[in-house]
Amino acid sequence: MRNLSCAAALIAALMSSTAHAQEPKGDVAWDILSGLTSEVGPRMPGSEAEARARVWADARLKALGFSNVTVEPFTIRGYVRGRDEASLLAPIPFKLAVTALGYSGTTPDKGVEGEVAYFPTLDALKAAPAGSLNGKIAFIDHAMKRAQDGSGYGPYGAVRRQGPAIAAGKGALATVIRSIGTDNHRNPHTGGTTFPDGTKPIPAGAVSNPDADLIARIARSGKPIRLNLTLTGKTTEGLPSGNVFADLPGRDPSLPAILLGCHLDSWDLGTGAIDDAAGCAIITAAALKAQEGGKPLRTIRVFWAGSEELGGFGGRDFAAKHAEPYALAMESDFGAAKVWRVTFSMAEANKALSDRIAAALSPMGIVRGPGTASGGTDVAPVIAKQKLAVVDLDQDGTHYFDLHHTPDDTLDKVDPAELAQNVAAWTEVLKIVANEAGPIAAVE
Amino acid sequence: MRNLSCAAALIAALMSSTAHAQEPKGDVAWDILSGLTSEVGPRMPGSEAEARARVWADARLKALGFSNVTVEPFTIRGYVRGRDEASLLAPIPFKLAVTALGYSGTTPDKGVEGEVAYFPTLDALKAAPAGSLNGKIAFIDHAMKRAQDGSGYGPYGAVRRQGPAIAAGKGALATVIRSIGTDNHRNPHTGGTTFPDGTKPIPAGAVSNPDADLIARIARSGKPIRLNLTLTGKTTEGLPSGNVFADLPGRDPSLPAILLGCHLDSWDLGTGAIDDAAGCAIITAAALKAQEGGKPLRTIRVFWAGSEELGGFGGRDFAAKHAEPYALAMESDFGAAKVWRVTFSMAEANKALSDRIAAALSPMGIVRGPGTASGGTDVAPVIAKQKLAVVDLDQDGTHYFDLHHTPDDTLDKVDPAELAQNVAAWTEVLKIVANEAGPIAAVE
Repeated sequence: MRNLSCAAALIAALMSSTAHAQEPKGDVAWDILSGLTSEVGPRMPGSEAEARARVWADARLKALGFSNVTVEPFTIRGYVRGRDEASLLAPIPFKLAVTALGYSGTTPDKGVEGEVAYFPTLDALKAAPAGSLNGKIAFIDHAMKRAQDGSGYGPYGAVRRQGPAIAAGKGALATVIRSIGTDNHRNPHTGGTTFPDGTKPIPAGAVSNPDADLIARIARSGKPIRLNLTLTGKTTEGLPSGNVFADLPGRDPSLPAILLGCHLDSWDLGTGAIDDAAGCAIITAAALKAQEGGKPLRTIRVFWAGSEELGGFGGRDFAAKHAEPYALAMESDFGAAKVWRVTFSMAEANKALSDRIAAALSPMGIVRGPGTASGGTDVAPVIAKQKLAVVDLDQDGTHYFDLHHTPDDTLDKVDPAELAQNVAAWTEVLKIVANEAGPIAAVE
Repeated sequence: MRNLSCAAALIAALMSSTAHAQEPKGDVAWDILSGLTSEVGPRMPGSEAEARARVWADARLKALGFSNVTVEPFTIRGYVRGRDEASLLAPIPFKLAVTALGYSGTTPDKGVEGEVAYFPTLDALKAAPAGSLNGKIAFIDHAMKRAQDGSGYGPYGAVRRQGPAIAAGKGALATVIRSIGTDNHRNPHTGGTTFPDGTKPIPAGAVSNPDADLIARIARSGKPIRLNLTLTGKTTEGLPSGNVFADLPGRDPSLPAILLGCHLDSWDLGTGAIDDAAGCAIITAAALKAQEGGKPLRTIRVFWAGSEELGGFGGRDFAAKHAEPYALAMESDFGAAKVWRVTFSMAEANKALSDRIAAALSPMGIVRGPGTASGGTDVAPVIAKQKLAVVDLDQDGTHYFDLHHTPDDTLDKVDPAELAQNVAAWTEVLKIVANEAGPIAAVE
């Protein structure tokens, strides 16, 4: 660093990217988001922290005036993180930024060491001959791109979900993948992987994109690559988890309620701000705002699901335990960036209703999309069981996969103005659907 | 994550933020940058890696046709990083993103634990009564802002350079600072700290900005904060380091040479791409390009200094060991973003020369600044000893302190087009100054 004059100190006042101050006061959504991230912290499925989150949620929902606040326990097959470390040993020593994937196999304390077999794509790994990875560490690269609607996560996410099991089937000692993410920071993206019955789990981790760039560059040079991978976490049965739900009763309790979902748990590397404290903040603040100017006809239920991140446990448990009918379901689980599009799964008979919703959102710059709404992981089992109508308020996902499942998923990443826009859009929708007297049906 | 349709897969082709391909082929500057970061890796002062960097530099400079390629050893008081860990223990458990500062004191393997005394500024720490920090961990916050000319680093950098020693003087068990940086990623910024003679070093670390935000938010809530800090690295005397320098001889060897500086060492968290492989890449490529169209009058010497990061050891050793006169010195050590400004330290008698340089740079959009050029840490001792003229090509520092001394200082952060603009600007200057036959003198 050269010696810098202080002459332009005035320029310095321009902006700071850190979160210092300027946080909204007395805002329900911000308070939930800030509370979950700062008073509870990360909320790993099945952890002591997730249990504290349920206690926090129970108290907060009661304080906000919700009725029928219920904490409903269940148990899960979880993953308890250990020590995550990886280092290049050859051709140069370098400490990699790595995270274990959920349900990874467990290494000894000193890790496992092996030569890297580099695969540019999942298809290249699939094409490797049986047994060709014996004693090797498979590295799976890919080329996920950013997209406003997040559509890269489906195909590229398969690298994380299926890659380690495919490598295990070909004899690999362990698997390391390029993070499923669109940023270029040294923060790896975690997430669950799956080993089907009959496949013995192998250690499976993800390195950050810059680390993957380095490995790819070395692989292109043709030099052999060796690495050590230490992932001491363990898959553990019978961990305690639970759901939290609460109601704002409508004027006509005989009518089926509106179900709003989010998830209370988070990955443990960050504090779960965009995934998914923001979702719980948005749906809850909007449910309350929809009461302003008069109690709606229908009950609104907020459902803060547990253990979504390791496979949607909370949503399935909720659907299995409850039979009361709902009129419509919605979910917020894609960050806190602005809502830009609305889609529906609604019968032709309810066209007037969906038209009214789209018309109410149009002045906010929210367009009606051509697709069909599907809800989210937490409400999906109820939607499937009851064949519910759904409204999706799609958030801008351009930057979502910069942060998703990383240490960087922290409160400072949420723009209070964008969070407020979400609450406003949800409130518009709720004021309409919760006051709809007639039946609301899903698309046939 | 909601189930996403693949409808917009076309949008996905828009852009990727990762470095995949598109690297320039056969470009001297890019090859040096890519080689140092990928074939050597991080180059901590006094480390085995820095020694490998010297071997690499010697071979590369010879291969590029430089003469008098010299590796000149010296020893330093270094810092050998150990295990860096920090966790909030209360009011919530949370694993912090932390790095030891260079010359930090050493904790036991199990770390040190204490209550946090929060100071919003360095001045607030200075005002704390003697002994008031006994048994406590001082946390020093601050509010560094981004600036195009990097001018925040002077005043805010004092938090890192002086804060730990000030806290030690008031009895603190350890010190943790908010990283001296302008980003909001979970990557802490390292850097050297200093304990004056008579002050026993205490463990000193920096946490990332989002971690500091969390600590500040908890501090505002009034809840007591406890943390564990484990920094097992050690200050070590007598570590081997060294400088590398090499010449492109001019037509008149009797004229004093032009000295171009950068530093070969780097911090160890990233691969030292912007700090300072880019600088060595820029000066070396420009020195070669200045030969095109005819050998210049004066010799150009490139000086790749060792152990800059722990206190400018290489620059001091070089100035102490060599007496040959130079005509002018320049340094590149502020990343690889575009050159936007030129400043001079040049005598009034050389006004025509500085005017010609400014005029040559003007078509590139580079403005002449009002300040006085100072060079950089590596050439400063020679400049002071010989009272040399200096030209500074100031790079845009708006984002420099997002990456500076972090794990994120990696090759992907350099834009090849901006690197090429630097080389072009340096080449313009060198073609003029290396062909100046008359004396070049510093500002009086």
